[in-house]
Amino acid sequence: MKGTVLYGPRDVRFEERPDPTIIEPTDAIIRLSAACVCGSDLWSYRGIDKVTKPMAMGHEYAGIVEEVGSAVRNIKPGQFVVGSFFASDNTCEICQAGYHSSCIHRQPGAPTGAQAQYARIPLADGTLVATPDLPSDDLIPSLLSASDVLGTGWFGAVAAAVSPGKTVAVVGDGAVGLLGVLSAKQMGAERIIAMSRHEDRQKLALEFGATDIVTERGDDGAAKIKELTNGFGAHSVIEAVGTQEALMQAIRSTRPGGHVGFTGVFHDVAIPGEEFFFSHVHLHGGPAPVRRFLPELIDLIWNRKIKPGKVFDLTLPLEQVAEGYRAMDERRAIKALLRP
Amino acid sequence: MKGTVLYGPRDVRFEERPDPTIIEPTDAIIRLSAACVCGSDLWSYRGIDKVTKPMAMGHEYAGIVEEVGSAVRNIKPGQFVVGSFFASDNTCEICQAGYHSSCIHRQPGAPTGAQAQYARIPLADGTLVATPDLPSDDLIPSLLSASDVLGTGWFGAVAAAVSPGKTVAVVGDGAVGLLGVLSAKQMGAERIIAMSRHEDRQKLALEFGATDIVTERGDDGAAKIKELTNGFGAHSVIEAVGTQEALMQAIRSTRPGGHVGFTGVFHDVAIPGEEFFFSHVHLHGGPAPVRRFLPELIDLIWNRKIKPGKVFDLTLPLEQVAEGYRAMDERRAIKALLRP
Repeated sequence: MKGTVLYGPRDVRFEERPDPTIIEPTDAIIRLSAACVCGSDLWSYRGIDKVTKPMAMGHEYAGIVEEVGSAVRNIKPGQFVVGSFFASDNTCEICQAGYHSSCIHRQPGAPTGAQAQYARIPLADGTLVATPDLPSDDLIPSLLSASDVLGTGWFGAVAAAVSPGKTVAVVGDGAVGLLGVLSAKQMGAERIIAMSRHEDRQKLALEFGATDIVTERGDDGAAKIKELTNGFGAHSVIEAVGTQEALMQAIRSTRPGGHVGFTGVFHDVAIPGEEFFFSHVHLHGGPAPVRRFLPELIDLIWNRKIKPGKVFDLTLPLEQVAEGYRAMDERRAIKALLRP
Repeated sequence: MKGTVLYGPRDVRFEERPDPTIIEPTDAIIRLSAACVCGSDLWSYRGIDKVTKPMAMGHEYAGIVEEVGSAVRNIKPGQFVVGSFFASDNTCEICQAGYHSSCIHRQPGAPTGAQAQYARIPLADGTLVATPDLPSDDLIPSLLSASDVLGTGWFGAVAAAVSPGKTVAVVGDGAVGLLGVLSAKQMGAERIIAMSRHEDRQKLALEFGATDIVTERGDDGAAKIKELTNGFGAHSVIEAVGTQEALMQAIRSTRPGGHVGFTGVFHDVAIPGEEFFFSHVHLHGGPAPVRRFLPELIDLIWNRKIKPGKVFDLTLPLEQVAEGYRAMDERRAIKALLRP
């Protein structure tokens, strides 16, 4: 088959790769219906996360099951399935508490890479969720988004304790931040303040349910959020970037007793103890336990209640994956969809 | 009147002070029935928090109302009242959400100092809670403890999301940690692991409801907690120290999806972002909003369901306050009660 390999900074190649095969009896092989480039792929692409050897890329996936191992009970060939970036057993005490991305048997969700024609998925029964039937083509981008960016934005909103009537602010206007807006809207937030200075992203944020746009960043952004909330700050803030500046912007935008839900992988972040102590903010996040939310998210998409696939504003044939990275790196695209 | 002033490291003086008077119409003057030394007073006593000018000491108080300002409606002379270390209006949006210690009108709870015969309490209606009647003498230590150490330990347990059936670990065996044990027991925790290496404190922890004692500290302590919990870590961890080591011990003792409630004022703490990101721990705490809990805590004490006053293992006449500081500094006492 053909798949995507990152050899070093900005060196993405779509090349011949070994066909994935069943290794463990709990594995499944899927044929990708669509693939995509993740904002987190850009950390390696840009050389910020060091690439020491060629890396098979892609961890978001949705597709048709081709084959399952002998121990797989619930997932069957021919089904359309969605998984996520961590494989999980869905049975351990940690999974049962909803933290699949810290499953005691956690492993990479698509170790052979999912920006490819086929992928091996470990722990298929605990990781994959099948749709009710084969989806129509227009649903596929949304179903693919559930695999990571939607599941992550949703977790950000859950971690930020979004609930009906609350004021929510979202730091970060990438796909996760935008889907954080959509998630907050679904959860009944009364006011949703998207922090963005890019017109195309502002537009999508408004379409997803944002009620206000704030273009200021850092402490100016936090001050603006306070100004919009009678000086209190937002009840819930979703942090979808992962930098020190974004996290501090989030903490400082939150009222005492409020919640910050963070989803952007932290890079060189240290939370200053004394400021945090007196902020009275709840802090929670980490790698999204997407598997917890998949049944609900698939249901919302299947019944056309949400259209998270709108974050894909560039569609390319899979073999042009390198152009997808370039477009996202240069912020010409919010998120690139790749069709095999 | 006479009151306590800290002039510099280890220089505590009990001396003549001006009688407190009503300054704002929302003030009350109380006559202290008992006073005490707080673990947090030791930061200044030891010179870790710099003392740049003489400081009136004491922020925990319970006593009889002597006089109220013209705007005070609910608190009346002759009542026995308990307050806390922050005065609050109890009406703003932040108080209504339960975060009185971040009240928009927050001010020090006993600005004239409460290790004294009398104290001025600002915002009396929003800050003080009266007991049903004058308490019998044996209840006074417990009522005084509600003012800070019990309210703070209770908040630690609330912030750590303690609930029936959970396993709770407590980092810190000072009065707050020990009362965190008592709080967790009241909230129905199934297993309560006290981390302590002092026999007298272990004994009190067991009396308050601890089921296990762990003497290891730091990463060894966290490893021991994991060993006791099938490798998962505790559901809830109360951090009652405020140092980097204690906070990391707390985070590393908590299972993914679990909660750390921190109550010790952070000194030189920085939370490492990447480790925290992947820990999947909920983090919440800060200065305890004691006022939120006072009605419930007073009720529990009044009906003799809890005896938090047991943390006072040394009773001294108020004029020997300096000896109270020395005994706590040298860990000869858990907490010193001062009787005027």
